[in-house]
This record gives sequence, structure tokens and C-alpha cells, in this order.
Amino acid sequence: MLTYSSWARKCPAAVALVVQKFGGTSVGSIDRIRNVARRAIATQKGGHDVVIVVSAMSGETNRLLALAHEVIKVPDAREMDVVAATGEQVSAALTAMAIHAEGGQARSLLGHQVKILTDGAFSKARIKTIEGSKIFDTLKQGRIAVVAGFQGVDEHGNITTLGRGGSDTTGVAVAAAIGASSCEIYTDVDGVYTTDPNICPSAKKIPRISYEEMLELASLGAKVLQIRSVEIAMKYAVPVHVRSSFSDAEGTWVTGEDKALENDVVVTGVAYEKNEARVHVVGVVDKPGIVADLFESIAGKNISVDMIIQNVSKAGVDRADVLFTLAKTDLARAKGFIEEIAKRLGSSEVRYDEDVVKVSIVGLGMRSHAGIAAKMFRILANEGINIQAISTSEIKVSCLIHAKYTELAVRTLHDGFGLNRV
Amino acid sequence: MLTYSSWARKCPAAVALVVQKFGGTSVGSIDRIRNVARRAIATQKGGHDVVIVVSAMSGETNRLLALAHEVIKVPDAREMDVVAATGEQVSAALTAMAIHAEGGQARSLLGHQVKILTDGAFSKARIKTIEGSKIFDTLKQGRIAVVAGFQGVDEHGNITTLGRGGSDTTGVAVAAAIGASSCEIYTDVDGVYTTDPNICPSAKKIPRISYEEMLELASLGAKVLQIRSVEIAMKYAVPVHVRSSFSDAEGTWVTGEDKALENDVVVTGVAYEKNEARVHVVGVVDKPGIVADLFESIAGKNISVDMIIQNVSKAGVDRADVLFTLAKTDLARAKGFIEEIAKRLGSSEVRYDEDVVKVSIVGLGMRSHAGIAAKMFRILANEGINIQAISTSEIKVSCLIHAKYTELAVRTLHDGFGLNRV
Repeated sequence: MLTYSSWARKCPAAVALVVQKFGGTSVGSIDRIRNVARRAIATQKGGHDVVIVVSAMSGETNRLLALAHEVIKVPDAREMDVVAATGEQVSAALTAMAIHAEGGQARSLLGHQVKILTDGAFSKARIKTIEGSKIFDTLKQGRIAVVAGFQGVDEHGNITTLGRGGSDTTGVAVAAAIGASSCEIYTDVDGVYTTDPNICPSAKKIPRISYEEMLELASLGAKVLQIRSVEIAMKYAVPVHVRSSFSDAEGTWVTGEDKALENDVVVTGVAYEKNEARVHVVGVVDKPGIVADLFESIAGKNISVDMIIQNVSKAGVDRADVLFTLAKTDLARAKGFIEEIAKRLGSSEVRYDEDVVKVSIVGLGMRSHAGIAAKMFRILANEGINIQAISTSEIKVSCLIHAKYTELAVRTLHDGFGLNRV
Repeated sequence: MLTYSSWARKCPAAVALVVQKFGGTSVGSIDRIRNVARRAIATQKGGHDVVIVVSAMSGETNRLLALAHEVIKVPDAREMDVVAATGEQVSAALTAMAIHAEGGQARSLLGHQVKILTDGAFSKARIKTIEGSKIFDTLKQGRIAVVAGFQGVDEHGNITTLGRGGSDTTGVAVAAAIGASSCEIYTDVDGVYTTDPNICPSAKKIPRISYEEMLELASLGAKVLQIRSVEIAMKYAVPVHVRSSFSDAEGTWVTGEDKALENDVVVTGVAYEKNEARVHVVGVVDKPGIVADLFESIAGKNISVDMIIQNVSKAGVDRADVLFTLAKTDLARAKGFIEEIAKRLGSSEVRYDEDVVKVSIVGLGMRSHAGIAAKMFRILANEGINIQAISTSEIKVSCLIHAKYTELAVRTLHDGFGLNRV
């Protein structure tokens, strides 16, 4: 996928090549941009070649989206990306200016200048290749390269964006493409936690975590890193260091499994996802192919389904109930055609429940420890929490429960698996 | 300079190709952007292929400049252009969205997409070539092409901007490049006036004016069109129609001399320029080459001098006084080295006067009418206005006077040359 540079290979030991990505709050004001500039200059003075990737100033992307929505309810996706990309364009140039102001040398590089080639899926484009030559030219001149995150261009030169959190992906993909020794993700939290510290005071910072675990946590609701960025880091073995832009403390290293598994924890983290809705299709005809019909139709509308359960139905003999979850944000547009298909499949009723949450435990250690799922069910049962659905993978167990139990479930699972003692 | 398209040549009579440029106030709010969209769609429905060029929403460029100046007193010119270009990027995409909202089809095109190739003089770049293929592709799909004004790219792909009013230049240059039948410049005034209506109530709208006269008026202080845009219109014979975006009234046509000179006026307009400062270098040694030394040194600092007068000096025998004017905005940085050179040339003193204004009369008819300058001097003298310096060309006469007489001079010259009766 990514184009490695021969230049980096030719002088691997000469200087270390570091990518630093700064999120929206880290560049949220001129003062903070100055901090970013000072940090980048300090890193450069430490003998490194430095590439920084910046998000839009916090609030800017929302301001631009609001402006577009004032024009039209559903803006054209191509034009929306043209508007949205200006957020990072401005912060990249301001950061380069701030580096000048602090006595350094820098140059901003936009998606089409780098160039970051993506597919043509506006607002959620995927990076195909990154050309490193403009970055290397900049570094060779002794400059810090400031890359605008979140944006790219498709093969026709149209501006694309990578979706919310897309600057993480830019950072990791650039690091992979230029062969950087690591990618530092500077954010407003100081690392990845065993669970959300906002609802669980005993949450602990995780010093090292594997790509696989991070991927599960990100997919299951942890907001620290964009999923796509972790996928790329794993694929290209880029060590990622998630840390605070407001301190010099070590954060969390996201790395390969061998390095991450230094201690013997079975469960690494507890995640929860509130953006799930449960759909209950009552009494469809129970014959082979019916469920396939249903989910093919939903997939055809580009909607992802998460947990799925099929039960014998109380609606009658030869009838089955199908329960599944999907993103709340997809529910409104999904309702119409779900009901249409349900009717066709002989269903008498479709019920919806948005008052649900998915809590999950994640850990590489599960692979070699039995009874982890059973322990999770027991902990929830002890608190009187009913489990509505279950899904598992090799390194995670997820339970769908009533939303009112969210905090209780997270706290008791967290401490029940000993994460308060890590 | 510009690349003409073979496509336009192949089907010249099929549809007329129109370029409409909208200034910052014309796209100053979402409601106004909707107006622009409706006008463009109406033009398209009238059987035309439509290209529109937009400025940044009014106030936006200043907001972006202020942001940059918060970071650093003198921002790097390259990075400043990266920031400034986002103003037009946003308005172009919002305008395309507004066209969708009004039921039309459109696509925004940025400088690097069009592509508008410029030299590398950041903040005041000059267009070298315009490639029309992306515009024609857009038109062929039945879409309105919305081009971001003011911006281009240099040969290295760096973003450049064309200076204040640069969107006029984009409009006219695009019109020339694609072989458009005309370029309409929509602005917040309804045309070019015989003088500034704000200080002269009897000012009249000029129906037709020649490129030459427009060029002089723009150079002498009239703010309606950027000078560079008139130069390009003249070079490529693009008829320019300056008109209001808030009405359907005919504005002013800027065209070739033959069409413009329909009536028999001698003086077409009166202009004034307040951004002039007078410099008086007292008592330099009066020998050949001295004045050349002085002005070569000033030119070497990239500062333009306007009017120049050399007199015998009261400072002594073999001494001369040199008076000249330059832009007030250049005065601060010019003072230091002017005094240094003056000293070297034996001058005893350098005096400055910022309380001056240059009033000018412009008209093609001057070429065939004698006594126009004399009449101007007489009109000013009758009002007791002292003339500090004079400069003339084939079609204009300029006088430097005390700034307090600005309005009086403009009004009496305007009516004295019969412009209130046009």
C-alpha cells in the first residue's frame, strides 16, 4: 500500500526519523500551536528529523460543517471535503509559522502536495499510497515538515478526507511510508487507559498494549485512536506512542504482541459503546435462507450489523425471532427497509430498543486462559444485570445490557478483573 | 501566456461561454451565496455554459491574516498564502453546494485543480498559464464550474495568491483561457463611475470605457478592478462587464477603444489616490548621475516611485532639490535608506509630507484635444488649490495637492469637465 523511500533506507542510522501527530486540542489556540512548535524544535535539536501531522484547531471542523449545513441539509460529499480540508490547511500553515517564530525552519505540506493518494470515497477515504519525496526534500533542507492531517487526493485530484480522527491515520501512514522509527500521537489524554477514567476512577494508564488489543478497544468504543490508524500501524509494524501534548510523561506504547505482553494480565481493558441500538424482528418464517435474506438486504444498504441472535419465536410454530444491533446513527434510515423486508419474511412486528449499551473486555491473555467469559457473566449477574446478547472473538467478550447499568458494569468488570491493581 | 482550448474553438456557436466573477460582498453570507447560485443557474438556463469565480466571503481574508499575525509579526509569505487561499476554497465549495440546493449541478475547482500556474512570488503571484481541461470536463457534464479566485500554484506545487483583488484577475484570465464571450464582474457597486460617488454626488455611471482608460483609473486610485485584471482583459480582448450582484441593471462595459468611444467626451473620469507620501531631498550635489544614483537605490529595494521633480535648490550653488512620491505603505521601511543615500549625495535634510493626495483626470479624448492640462490647473487655481507636483501621460494628467482639498478638487474637476452632464 505505501511507497517506502529509498532515501530512508540508504541512511538508516544517520538520524532517527520521528513523526509527531497533534490533535485538535493540541493546536486549539495560538498559544498551544506555539507549544507544538517548541516541542518539534526540541525534538529536532535532539538530533532527529521531524515530521509533524496536525489536525484542525478544535472546533474548526464543526464550524465548517455547520456552515455547509446552513447552505444545504445534505451537502454534496465531494464539496464537503473541500470545505473540511481547510481546517487542517490553516493549522498546518500556522504551525509552520509558529516554528519560524520560535527560531526554527518549517514548511507546511497539504494532502495534494505530499501527496497522499486515497480512493474516491469522500468523507471516509482510505489511503492508497503516500509519496515521500516532498517530505524528504523538506527534511534535507533542515526543515521540519508540517503535514496537514485528515486529507488526501484521489486519482483525479479531488480533495478527500479520511473521516473523524483521520489525522491519526495520516500520522501513522506517513510514519510507515517514510520509514519513521515511531509515530507519537499527542492528544489531550496522557495515554490509553484500562477503561474510561471519566466513569471509573480506578482506571489505570496502560504502559504497553498490542496492536490487536488496541484494535479491539478502538472498535468497541475507546475513542483514543482511529481504528484505521491502528490497522496501518499493525500492518507496517509502526510503534505508536499515545501521549499528552501538555506533559513530558511517557504515555502508552502500542506495539507488536511480543513487546506488549510484558506482564501477565489476562484482561487489558474494559470498553463500552453507547452508539448501539437493538432491533427485534418478531416471528419470521423459520426456513433456511431467511436470515441470509435479511442481512444481505441490510448490507446492501451499506449498514453494518454488530451482534446477531436467532431464537425460536413465541409467535408460533415454524417461526423464529431475529435480534441484532446496529449503530444508533444508522437506525433512522434503516427502519423503513428493515420493516419492509421483515414483512416480506412473514414477521408480525419489529421492535426497537435504543436504551442499550455494549460492554466489552479485551485481552490477549484470554487466548490461553479459560473461563474468562464465564467470569464476566458472573460479575454482571452478581450485580443483577441482565445480558441481552453476547458476542465473542479470540481476544474479547462483549455483552449487550440495559444502558442504565453502564457505569456499574464498567466499574465492577474493571475491578473484578483486577485492572485497578495493574 | 494563456492556453486556449481547442474544444472551445471546435464549437464556437453551439453555446456561449460566460465567466461570472463574484466579489467578497457578493458571497458575504449564506443568503448572498444562494443569490449567486440562482443567478448562475438562470444564466445556464438561458443557454450558456457558465463558469463562476468567487472571492472569499467578505471579512474572511482579514480574519485569516489576523490569525497569522497572532502567530508571528511577519508571517512567512509561502505559509501566509496557504492560509489565505482557504478563504476562496471554502466559498467555492459552499457556492457549489448552494447551486445543488437550488436544483443545479456544480463542481468547485481550486487553483491546483484548474490548474492556474503562476510564478513563485507569494502574495503577489502572476498567472503564467491556465489549463482549461478540468473546466471543460465540468461543463461537458452539464455542471457549472465554480473556480476559487485569488489562488494558483507555482511550478513546484506551492500554493500562491494573486494579491488583493486577485479574484478579478482569476476571472478575466480564466475567461481569456477558455475563450469565453465575456467576463462579468459582480461587485457591490453597479459599475464604474466618473468619480467616487461617496465624495461627489453628481458622479455618473459610465456605460462603456476603454481598457486604456480603465487601466489608468485603476492605477490612479479607482478601486473597482484590480489593475492586473484590466491588463489581461486588454491583452486578450476579453470584454469585461462590471455590474452589481444585487440588481439586474447593466453596469459598465470595459472593452476595446473602438467600441468604448461612442460619445465624444474628452475626460472620462476623475480619480484620487490617498496612499501617496511626498519625499523632499534638500540640496543634493547637482552633477550628472546623482539623481540616477538615488532612484536606482530605491528601485533596488523594490519600492516604486511615482512623481519626480528636480529643482534648483535654495541650499546653495550647485545644489538641487529632488522631490518624489511613493506609497505611504512603503514609507516606513524606505526612510532609513533614503536618508543614508541622501547623506551620501551631499543632502543636508530629507523632509516628508504624508498630507498629500494625487488627483487625476483620465480620458482617451485628451489625445486629440489640446489644453486639457491647462484647464485642469485653472480649475484648481480658481479654488485656491496649490499644485505641488504634476505628471502626465497620453491620456491622463495628475496633480499632487494638499490632502485637505481632496473632495473640493474632485468635485470641481468632475463638474468642470462636464462629467455631471454625461
